[in-house]
Amino acid sequence: MENVCTCSICPFEKHVTGLVAKIVENYHNIPKIHYLDRRFLPDRSDVVGVLDLMFPILYPGYHGRQDLTFNNVSFHVGELLTKLSHKLCLQINNALAYNIEPADGKIDEQKIRNEATTIALQFMYEIPNIRQMLRGDVEAAYEGDPAAVNIDEIILAYPGLLAITVHRIAHELYRLNVPLIPRIMSEHTHSITGIDIHPGATIGMNFFIDHGTGVVIGETTEIGDNVKLYQGVTLGAVSFPHDERGKIIRGEKRHPTLESDVTVYANATILGGETVIGKGSVVGANVFIASSVPPACTVSIKAPELKFKNRRAK
Amino acid sequence: MENVCTCSICPFEKHVTGLVAKIVENYHNIPKIHYLDRRFLPDRSDVVGVLDLMFPILYPGYHGRQDLTFNNVSFHVGELLTKLSHKLCLQINNALAYNIEPADGKIDEQKIRNEATTIALQFMYEIPNIRQMLRGDVEAAYEGDPAAVNIDEIILAYPGLLAITVHRIAHELYRLNVPLIPRIMSEHTHSITGIDIHPGATIGMNFFIDHGTGVVIGETTEIGDNVKLYQGVTLGAVSFPHDERGKIIRGEKRHPTLESDVTVYANATILGGETVIGKGSVVGANVFIASSVPPACTVSIKAPELKFKNRRAK
Amino acid sequence: MENVCTCSICPFEKHVTGLVAKIVENYHNIPKIHYLDRRFLPDRSDVVGVLDLMFPILYPGYHGRQDLTFNNVSFHVGELLTKLSHKLCLQINNALAYNIEPADGKIDEQKIRNEATTIALQFMYEIPNIRQMLRGDVEAAYEGDPAAVNIDEIILAYPGLLAITVHRIAHELYRLNVPLIPRIMSEHTHSITGIDIHPGATIGMNFFIDHGTGVVIGETTEIGDNVKLYQGVTLGAVSFPHDERGKIIRGEKRHPTLESDVTVYANATILGGETVIGKGSVVGANVFIASSVPPACTVSIKAPELKFKNRRAK
Repeated sequence: MENVCTCSICPFEKHVTGLVAKIVENYHNIPKIHYLDRRFLPDRSDVVGVLDLMFPILYPGYHGRQDLTFNNVSFHVGELLTKLSHKLCLQINNALAYNIEPADGKIDEQKIRNEATTIALQFMYEIPNIRQMLRGDVEAAYEGDPAAVNIDEIILAYPGLLAITVHRIAHELYRLNVPLIPRIMSEHTHSITGIDIHPGATIGMNFFIDHGTGVVIGETTEIGDNVKLYQGVTLGAVSFPHDERGKIIRGEKRHPTLESDVTVYANATILGGETVIGKGSVVGANVFIASSVPPACTVSIKAPELKFKNRRAK
Repeated sequence: MENVCTCSICPFEKHVTGLVAKIVENYHNIPKIHYLDRRFLPDRSDVVGVLDLMFPILYPGYHGRQDLTFNNVSFHVGELLTKLSHKLCLQINNALAYNIEPADGKIDEQKIRNEATTIALQFMYEIPNIRQMLRGDVEAAYEGDPAAVNIDEIILAYPGLLAITVHRIAHELYRLNVPLIPRIMSEHTHSITGIDIHPGATIGMNFFIDHGTGVVIGETTEIGDNVKLYQGVTLGAVSFPHDERGKIIRGEKRHPTLESDVTVYANATILGGETVIGKGSVVGANVFIASSVPPACTVSIKAPELKFKNRRAK
Repeated sequence: MENVCTCSICPFEKHVTGLVAKIVENYHNIPKIHYLDRRFLPDRSDVVGVLDLMFPILYPGYHGRQDLTFNNVSFHVGELLTKLSHKLCLQINNALAYNIEPADGKIDEQKIRNEATTIALQFMYEIPNIRQMLRGDVEAAYEGDPAAVNIDEIILAYPGLLAITVHRIAHELYRLNVPLIPRIMSEHTHSITGIDIHPGATIGMNFFIDHGTGVVIGETTEIGDNVKLYQGVTLGAVSFPHDERGKIIRGEKRHPTLESDVTVYANATILGGETVIGKGSVVGANVFIASSVPPACTVSIKAPELKFKNRRAK
């Protein structure tokens, strides 16, 4: 093919040395956005690899191998769990070591490895409980969406189920105080689904997000059981408290609470750490609210007046 | 590297057997979210593989090989079609078998295989018609977007074109009563583009979605020719009818009809199965409407009053 | 496995020849959506490959290899730059050749290759400046988001940083008049982040987009320093001027200007090429505005009145 660059005559070779020097000099001058002379950091693609191992364990036969029976599934799960344990443990180890490395430079590697092992095991023993939750989420999706033909479709294709599945994994690791990894998982899923759930958010049973693109659920959100959200819903913060030096204060409850049996329709925005949407209430499409709603209440906007203009006239 | 987990001393081995037992017990206890002791199911990555074969057939030279000429393109298409026919036929076969397997457990495999073959062929003979539609969609994108330099840019990069291309494929399979596969295709594209078009939606010629993130087009939507949508537009359902036991009734017309030459601007929401937006009408940004609009009409919101506050005062 | 299509008896073979003929005939009949008998076009996956090489150069140790030190990083960068130079030069070459090919059919390949080399070098010498900008963007994200634990999390996981990183690369190539490639880059990132920034947009220092899904920033937008946007913000065009034949006029300033220190909250829409949001102003959530705002001003909507209905009554 003629349109291949005949690189032997390219002038890049004589430039590369100079360019490398300039860029490495730039690494020295701008210290904050490289990770040089550091040893520990979780690896993004291995964290995604952990999720890829979790899905065929959580939904056997749907994700991964398809000829599984109750007779052969133990071998399959054993293989997946073995791979998962090593991959997860190494990533947790690196996340823990990463987290303390800056403090003193010298770390007790054996101690961290033991901690990582303990956390990885705690996590893996939670898998049956996670599946118990997911069963409710799958059923909530089926009950909530008239376009769903059956639950197989939901497990194979629904972005809302993907998002809550990864959230239940990430939230467990967040609860176990694993740094960085939960956030890498949630943003990976955000990129696939358009649903942005911070791993810190607490979400009850039978949760369903329909369509989902544009949903944002903030770090300190609390959600009860049987809650349903539609696309574009924001559960966010009003504004952030700042300390006396003008720096943001982190860690406060900034995001709302949704009690059980709440439904929030498309593109509604609910803001504020003291906002509580009471049990059984319904928040209508496009509602913007930063104060509490009592239980069993329907809130809707008095829709902006519409103007109709006949275009034939012109 | 020291930060590798020295797995020989890892305690996972002695835990794996117990963990596997617990998880497999969990599969017995929670029957609904596994697919064990079942034989047939379409494979998600092979369904995506079908799309990967369709794009270089539909847009030769843009997707896949680049040195194609009218002399050599027949060989190229022949190769792609051969691969496509086998992959598509197997997936359709599994989808059809999946769909009847629960009913009686015993299926007539030869009959299903013949059906799958027939459907795959019907689909492949539609390819020229699909291209005819796509040509109009590409031109509509060029006519509708002043940022488009040329149609090459649209075919190589526009998410709206990707979404309508996959929709025209998925809708054809939906029309041919193939279970599951159309929905896997549409949700795959939703994850790439942020555009959620149910494969059941009927969409006319010269369709263009600009930007696209957040668009939702429901299952029973009907769209005429020359329609243009912007990001965040929802064509949705008002509420779902329930039967006497409180279960959702599936299959009703729940989503609106847009007649030809309609434009819907960003973040407008149009709801309801009886809502008809008449020919040539324009629905403004942020409009929320659940009733019909006559032809040749512009609907806009009386924009919410804005409050201006000088921040220097404080 | 029984569910494999026994293709030897499949009837596809006898159909393929006829199908190929029909489809190739269709390529003749519909000339606009194939790229046959043409030689030059950038390759989408190689353009994405350029980005994959840029990230470990821009953020060494975060993306790609992790055991990097100031001692070994030169070799690493040297290797990456060598690969980058060839891949980038070839894609630029093809984009330049593509752009003039239709005009006369015969092109001066040596001249184009020289131009491509010059542009690739100019681009690579900009890398330190791009990193300088990105450092400010990373810090703006940390200052602007109370959920951010540290800057590592931002570099590893934040979609807003991914989007501005690719924009700073794509905008540089846009500025150097490279056809097609910048747009392929920006739409690739749009698909990952839900953030749609046209490569033509001019964006100042310390830029931060939080959450990001649904953000649209049009081609002729101008943004100052220290600007912060939230999810769902549109910086768009009101309407497009058409020439006397009804064709869209391309290339006008159609999108707004945001001066420095502006914040735009979620789902606000700012439209129009003459709209200027003055220095230090704040545009509230859901605001829809197509006219200018003076400096140091807070604009918010008089929120639509809410209706509360007690659902217990029924």
